[in-house]
Amino acid sequence: LPSRLPGVGTTIFSVMSALAAETGAVNLGQGFPDFDCDPRLVDAVSHAMSAGLNQYAPMTGVPALRQAIAAKLQSLYGRAYDAEREITVTAGATQAILTALLALVHPGDEVIVLDPCYDSYVPGIALAGGTAVRVPLQPGSFRPDFDRIAAALTPRTRALIVNTPHNPSGTVWREADMLRLQELLAPTGVWLISDEVYEHMVFDGQLHASAARHPGLAERALIVSSFGKTYHVTGWKVGYVAAPAALSAEFRKVHQFNVFSVNTPVQHGLAQHLADPQPYLELPAFYQRKRELFRAGLGATRLRLLPCEGSYFQCVDYRDLALPERELPEAAFCEWLTREIGVAAIPLSAFYGDGFEQGVVRLCFAKRDETLQAALERLARL
Amino acid sequence: LPSRLPGVGTTIFSVMSALAAETGAVNLGQGFPDFDCDPRLVDAVSHAMSAGLNQYAPMTGVPALRQAIAAKLQSLYGRAYDAEREITVTAGATQAILTALLALVHPGDEVIVLDPCYDSYVPGIALAGGTAVRVPLQPGSFRPDFDRIAAALTPRTRALIVNTPHNPSGTVWREADMLRLQELLAPTGVWLISDEVYEHMVFDGQLHASAARHPGLAERALIVSSFGKTYHVTGWKVGYVAAPAALSAEFRKVHQFNVFSVNTPVQHGLAQHLADPQPYLELPAFYQRKRELFRAGLGATRLRLLPCEGSYFQCVDYRDLALPERELPEAAFCEWLTREIGVAAIPLSAFYGDGFEQGVVRLCFAKRDETLQAALERLARL
Ligand SMILES: CSCCC(=O)C(=O)O
Ligand SMILES: CSCCC(=O)C(=O)O
Repeated sequence: LPSRLPGVGTTIFSVMSALAAETGAVNLGQGFPDFDCDPRLVDAVSHAMSAGLNQYAPMTGVPALRQAIAAKLQSLYGRAYDAEREITVTAGATQAILTALLALVHPGDEVIVLDPCYDSYVPGIALAGGTAVRVPLQPGSFRPDFDRIAAALTPRTRALIVNTPHNPSGTVWREADMLRLQELLAPTGVWLISDEVYEHMVFDGQLHASAARHPGLAERALIVSSFGKTYHVTGWKVGYVAAPAALSAEFRKVHQFNVFSVNTPVQHGLAQHLADPQPYLELPAFYQRKRELFRAGLGATRLRLLPCEGSYFQCVDYRDLALPERELPEAAFCEWLTREIGVAAIPLSAFYGDGFEQGVVRLCFAKRDETLQAALERLARL
Repeated sequence: LPSRLPGVGTTIFSVMSALAAETGAVNLGQGFPDFDCDPRLVDAVSHAMSAGLNQYAPMTGVPALRQAIAAKLQSLYGRAYDAEREITVTAGATQAILTALLALVHPGDEVIVLDPCYDSYVPGIALAGGTAVRVPLQPGSFRPDFDRIAAALTPRTRALIVNTPHNPSGTVWREADMLRLQELLAPTGVWLISDEVYEHMVFDGQLHASAARHPGLAERALIVSSFGKTYHVTGWKVGYVAAPAALSAEFRKVHQFNVFSVNTPVQHGLAQHLADPQPYLELPAFYQRKRELFRAGLGATRLRLLPCEGSYFQCVDYRDLALPERELPEAAFCEWLTREIGVAAIPLSAFYGDGFEQGVVRLCFAKRDETLQAALERLARL
């Protein structure tokens, strides 16, 4: 049985969550909240089920949800998307990204990703028959290196995947970065897959650098987001893609033969919830407070804090520890940290094509304060 | 924007449902029930949400659901699947089939489909970089033609897709067919994708010819099924794949980068519901009664009934009508039937690679008796 994805194992997130469960460690690995969603959201979905909204949704998504998404994009980023032709509801952001790749990439095409990146991008490019071209973000700062991106563009480049706020580093692109990107792509026919799943988790008053804010980017962009992240329901698996009509048409051709449509009652519940902007407008402050709490606690350890401008991830460098384990490669360090200290983390090396090692691991702070405190108490032993 | 699926439009099911909605026709086109599911199932899902089961499920599926699926397969078909390694929960059967194709098919491989077939198979093969080899079922009877299947096997054949009960024809394979298939594939390395989504809708005491009953098939088969069909919740989008461990491992490599995981509370609700065999054991009688009712009514029209051994589809030949529209191609006939008679149907030509015309359309009888009566009253005008 020759593999379509040789060298690919089980995603690191499953591996670390399984190890955390097995060892009883505090799981700060895989990114998901350990607190619950707004009970009104549960009520809205239950109500939709009880009202009999249990058959196929339209392939493109429930109209009320698409309209609420378009309204949000308009009010936050100033771009008017046509809910009928330019918004498609997906079974989460991962499905959106694979579907976009299958729709855009022809065999032999190149797709640029910025290393480190989310672990589904490169296998998705391979499944679409393309070649991933990995361009490193600037070492240490994780900021885009436009000279290297420019140098990687070739006539075979079909698409570029950008992710801000950035998983795993928590870096947030500036407006100046987006303008630079717009300039760079202007003379090309390169499509932009803009992974904005942490769009509502940007801190310190900074703006989320959505591709939707820039007409020159938006006209070539598939913007991907996720309700799981925004509403604390990662297990519901609903996201969306916003893209110009011609791009959306190609996306939908593939989408209809991938999942066809997405859970109907959940879409109705989300449509109702999204009509109220307050929950997502409150999210930056909600997570910024958790970030402060977590960073304050980590400051008392010998783990060195990297900047966190957005997302619900905090990266730490463990090379200053006064322990022999500071010499371990990141994956081995995470296993040791899980088993011996009782805190699960994700090695940054898992986000690199070449398994680049820099002594840094990722911790998720989308957790109850008590959970963060419990993890901090354990980490204090370091 | 060069298309990965040139020549592919919007799936016929969306097109006909939209036309039915627009015209107020009775929608017997797209296959879905217009009655509701067991309220206990809704309660179980609502309960899971209220209990806070709203974060990522394990990538392979909630263990209780995988175990219930394995128990069902064992009790109905006598094969023991390992719930941990051989069952994967999917976001519906369509996602399962595309994922299977992406996992198995290498560029240049051939995949045999039996025409007419479900409209996602061939685009899925193309997206995986393979070539679809369309082998016709026997004209008129829609039974497999093993000589033609044998003749289509080449060293490049990677997989064969079989679907019983068959959409659109309602044909059910016999055990003898499965034995013949087993014999035919024995000397080959061809994988079997066995689409069994209508497994619980087999009539007149016939047995569902699951690939799981035959070790020689099961060892090479990805068996696909759907809870949407079985439990009257097509909009929930949950299905599964059962396959030997090595096949499941390759399937999961792709699945984790497609949807990653499936709606958690729905999986918990289904796990509870599936533990009771009664609902799926009652399904053949439930649909057989609807089939009788519908066929009896259709018998009073000039539409000629084709056999219906399983599924919730009844095909009818309209070439005996005493109307000029009997000369129309199937798609045009369906549009006329929807607009002028007020009943939406699906043209069989949509299931063929070459748009083969035989004057037959498909009607879905997964409807309340009143809906079927309303449709029959309208069809009586023919
Ligand atoms: C789909 S599991 C991974 C969740 C996540 O986005 C992360 O931990 O990076
Ligand atoms: C996914 S929409 C089509 C539903 C169905 O299986 C059919 O009508 O054949």
